[in-house]
Amino acid sequence: MSADFAATPSPPYYAVIFSSLRAEGDDGYGDAARELFAEVSKIEGFLGVESIRGANGFGITTAYFADEAAILRWREDARHKVAQERGKTGWYSHYSVRIGRIERAYEGPEGR
Amino acid sequence: MSADFAATPSPPYYAVIFSSLRAEGDDGYGDAARELFAEVSKIEGFLGVESIRGANGFGITTAYFADEAAILRWREDARHKVAQERGKTGWYSHYSVRIGRIERAYEGPEGR
Repeated sequence: MSADFAATPSPPYYAVIFSSLRAEGDDGYGDAARELFAEVSKIEGFLGVESIRGANGFGITTAYFADEAAILRWREDARHKVAQERGKTGWYSHYSVRIGRIERAYEGPEGR
Repeated sequence: MSADFAATPSPPYYAVIFSSLRAEGDDGYGDAARELFAEVSKIEGFLGVESIRGANGFGITTAYFADEAAILRWREDARHKVAQERGKTGWYSHYSVRIGRIERAYEGPEGR
């Protein structure tokens, strides 16, 4: 099992699904993304994150939180707010955010 | 906006979040994956899918459905069942499935 997987507890918990298409050019994105992964991990109630971006610029990040209060803490985080603004004004040609309650989960393959 | 984004309706609806790390070798995976994307789109209640895999073999697929009944139809789909078995026995070194109810969603950037 790779470190790419989030080690989440048994449900219920909450997911923030962020899918995005990067705009051309780095524009400070790479450094900011690394900083944000460090920042979110400090949020009380943060459970884990999984993230991947393909060569075509399309990426999906799923961040997991214990409850809605933790999501709110992340939404109001100062560095995250700066990043949200950059996201709106340059980093992405499009993005989508979906927030939901994870009700069940399982992993596999068993025994491997 | 790219065709990579799923054009989902207003919440609530359901998400199946599938994250996986591919094992070495293709083993029929590429063809089967293409076939499965065609197959899931025929499921009554299927809303859309977003999927990306990175060069490191880690991938995230988020599939959206109108309700739990649609997820059940997909789980019981004959071709999907064959793929689930292949997934357990060879395609993935690890995978994680999380199922939840999307409660709110938004897109951006506005006006671009």
